[in-house]
Amino acid sequence: MSFSERSRSLPASPIRRLEPFAEETRARGIRIYPLHIGQPDIETPGLFFESLRKFSSRTLAYGRSHGELGLIDKIVEYYGKIGIPLERENILVTNGGSEALNFAVNIACDPGDSILVPEPFYPAYAAFASLATAGIIPVTTRAEDGFHLPPGNEINKLIKPSTRAILLSHPGNPTGVVYTKKEIETITDLAVEHDLLLIADEVYREFVYMDEPYLSFGKVDRLRDRLVIVDSVSKRYSACGARIGCLVSRNREFMSLALKHCQSRGSSPTLEQVGAAALYETPDSYLEAVNQEYRKRRDILFDGLNGIPGIICKKPEGAFYIMAKLPVDDAEKFIIWMLQEFAVNGETVMASPAEGFYATPGLGKSEIRMAYVLNEEDLKKAVGILANGISAYPGKTL
Amino acid sequence: MSFSERSRSLPASPIRRLEPFAEETRARGIRIYPLHIGQPDIETPGLFFESLRKFSSRTLAYGRSHGELGLIDKIVEYYGKIGIPLERENILVTNGGSEALNFAVNIACDPGDSILVPEPFYPAYAAFASLATAGIIPVTTRAEDGFHLPPGNEINKLIKPSTRAILLSHPGNPTGVVYTKKEIETITDLAVEHDLLLIADEVYREFVYMDEPYLSFGKVDRLRDRLVIVDSVSKRYSACGARIGCLVSRNREFMSLALKHCQSRGSSPTLEQVGAAALYETPDSYLEAVNQEYRKRRDILFDGLNGIPGIICKKPEGAFYIMAKLPVDDAEKFIIWMLQEFAVNGETVMASPAEGFYATPGLGKSEIRMAYVLNEEDLKKAVGILANGISAYPGKTL
Repeated sequence: MSFSERSRSLPASPIRRLEPFAEETRARGIRIYPLHIGQPDIETPGLFFESLRKFSSRTLAYGRSHGELGLIDKIVEYYGKIGIPLERENILVTNGGSEALNFAVNIACDPGDSILVPEPFYPAYAAFASLATAGIIPVTTRAEDGFHLPPGNEINKLIKPSTRAILLSHPGNPTGVVYTKKEIETITDLAVEHDLLLIADEVYREFVYMDEPYLSFGKVDRLRDRLVIVDSVSKRYSACGARIGCLVSRNREFMSLALKHCQSRGSSPTLEQVGAAALYETPDSYLEAVNQEYRKRRDILFDGLNGIPGIICKKPEGAFYIMAKLPVDDAEKFIIWMLQEFAVNGETVMASPAEGFYATPGLGKSEIRMAYVLNEEDLKKAVGILANGISAYPGKTL
Repeated sequence: MSFSERSRSLPASPIRRLEPFAEETRARGIRIYPLHIGQPDIETPGLFFESLRKFSSRTLAYGRSHGELGLIDKIVEYYGKIGIPLERENILVTNGGSEALNFAVNIACDPGDSILVPEPFYPAYAAFASLATAGIIPVTTRAEDGFHLPPGNEINKLIKPSTRAILLSHPGNPTGVVYTKKEIETITDLAVEHDLLLIADEVYREFVYMDEPYLSFGKVDRLRDRLVIVDSVSKRYSACGARIGCLVSRNREFMSLALKHCQSRGSSPTLEQVGAAALYETPDSYLEAVNQEYRKRRDILFDGLNGIPGIICKKPEGAFYIMAKLPVDDAEKFIIWMLQEFAVNGETVMASPAEGFYATPGLGKSEIRMAYVLNEEDLKKAVGILANGISAYPGKTL
């Protein structure tokens, strides 16, 4: 009895696959500062929990495959407020942004097709491409350039006849990049010229730390019919555990195919949708305060990293991650060593090894992704421990 | 811009795709008795909602990709009580039984592989096979035989070199069949002889209305390493909207592949797992009372159907569905007609057209699946309206 090659070649999550090492470390009584996963310590707005307490139905029934209308209407309202007018039919509720991504890649690609993805990218993109037996064509971006895109003519050369879509996160996970107006035009030109679908993962939309306003792909008129936005309440409202996301598109054919995917799994969880609908009533002041908090954390983490000899990183403009190149032989080995062999006063740090964030072999081997999802004090301690760890690590390359 | 053939050929759910017609009908003020979907009106045990009220964490965080240990331990305990000893590592929590099925089929099959499935079957099986670009080899069973299996040598002839797994539900959805000990041995022989994985969807395990005890495939020693059980709290505890299921297997390789699938989508919703863990503390008296209630409903629906001229159906032994052959030209047309054109005192009935429950072309065209998930009084009314509808329907074949 053998199992599918597709499942065997499915990449394990670099964010989650070191979790067993961490469980052992915790079992030894060591405290771990978790920089490896985008799990904020920010409080979920209380509206979520209050709305569940008010839920009065005595049978917890299936919802609509499209998603509950109460939630969909709130999402429509939210998009209206940010200047993207939508109708109910433009939205399908999903089990987190993850399921939305999975459906979008599956709808874009048949086996052997390919998608163009700026690398480093969120590793689930590679997993969902792999499940769709589709290839990733990486557009390599570099820490030295703040992970901004190469010129359009260079990207243009990468596109193949098999290419069906461009997939990117904006603001970028793990890079923190926020694209310039010119970059957004370049991507739009490429999508239009090559007749590609653009899948824009905008779950970090509220986490931008620049003076210029953030430009959603949803506002680009020329993309109107070829755009799919992946969205989620996870990061916006610090509600990752609700697993409520959505697909947003004005392309009717795409949405009718996506609805079949939604039907195949029944519905998203009913109560979580009730809670998510309530989250959209959170006052803007919450999002503004959270934005300020992350901006402060970014500065703390970035300044701390800058003080460590041999580290290369640029100040990210959005999201809540920093990618950094470490002066070590192998970032994964280093992180496992930090978990197994190193501690300062019974405390250590966990980050994500970044090799799995790249499709180009060999890239990212000495890089890590860190999420600045801890409070100021913990973040300072974590950077200090990281600095000590690098200094003590036997595989240092500096 | 064109979309994937895989998504375009994905079958729409016959259970859910008539929902837009039903929404129009309800908008006209007509009450619909919903026999089309396995959504019980039974109350969810209050423990579910109570446990959520006690949830004290102020941040709704991601859970473990494996599933929360609190829930996994309850599932281990439950299986121990029904005579199937398991360890934590034999369980992965999923987004409903649906996700468990999707993962299992994907792990079993590469493109071009096939799975053997008794038909009629739960339509999501066809959807997940289609997503995995795998074929279904149907083992046709008939209402006249109570949907019991043909002899082993006939099934044996259907198995191809590309066949990787047998997938079945037991008790059967939509058939209500409960396999005899001999049938279970036949399936076991086939799995062992042809080195196949057996994916047993046992979500209706508690809904058996026979005197002989129900035999789970989990108790068959010879299947030990080649068995995957798909399970869920949806039907057991009338908590379909929680979307919490699980994969159960002692095959380590299968489970390590399944964990990668679980990691790719992060985790199942945190609060729903808290609630599901509480459900497993429901006293056995709840399940016994629910079993008695469904048994009564089965008898009411079956007796009612038996009184309608030209209907063919046999009394089901388990689950909460009845498949019936109607004296109509086309069951889907008939159901749409019932929604659009027919009503008795402002009330009508909805069922699922059964063609999508078959892989063999042409089968099931005049059949419907009904779920006896309504209370006694409503069920009696629903059968009465159905009888009147059949009598008034212009496409009658009797």
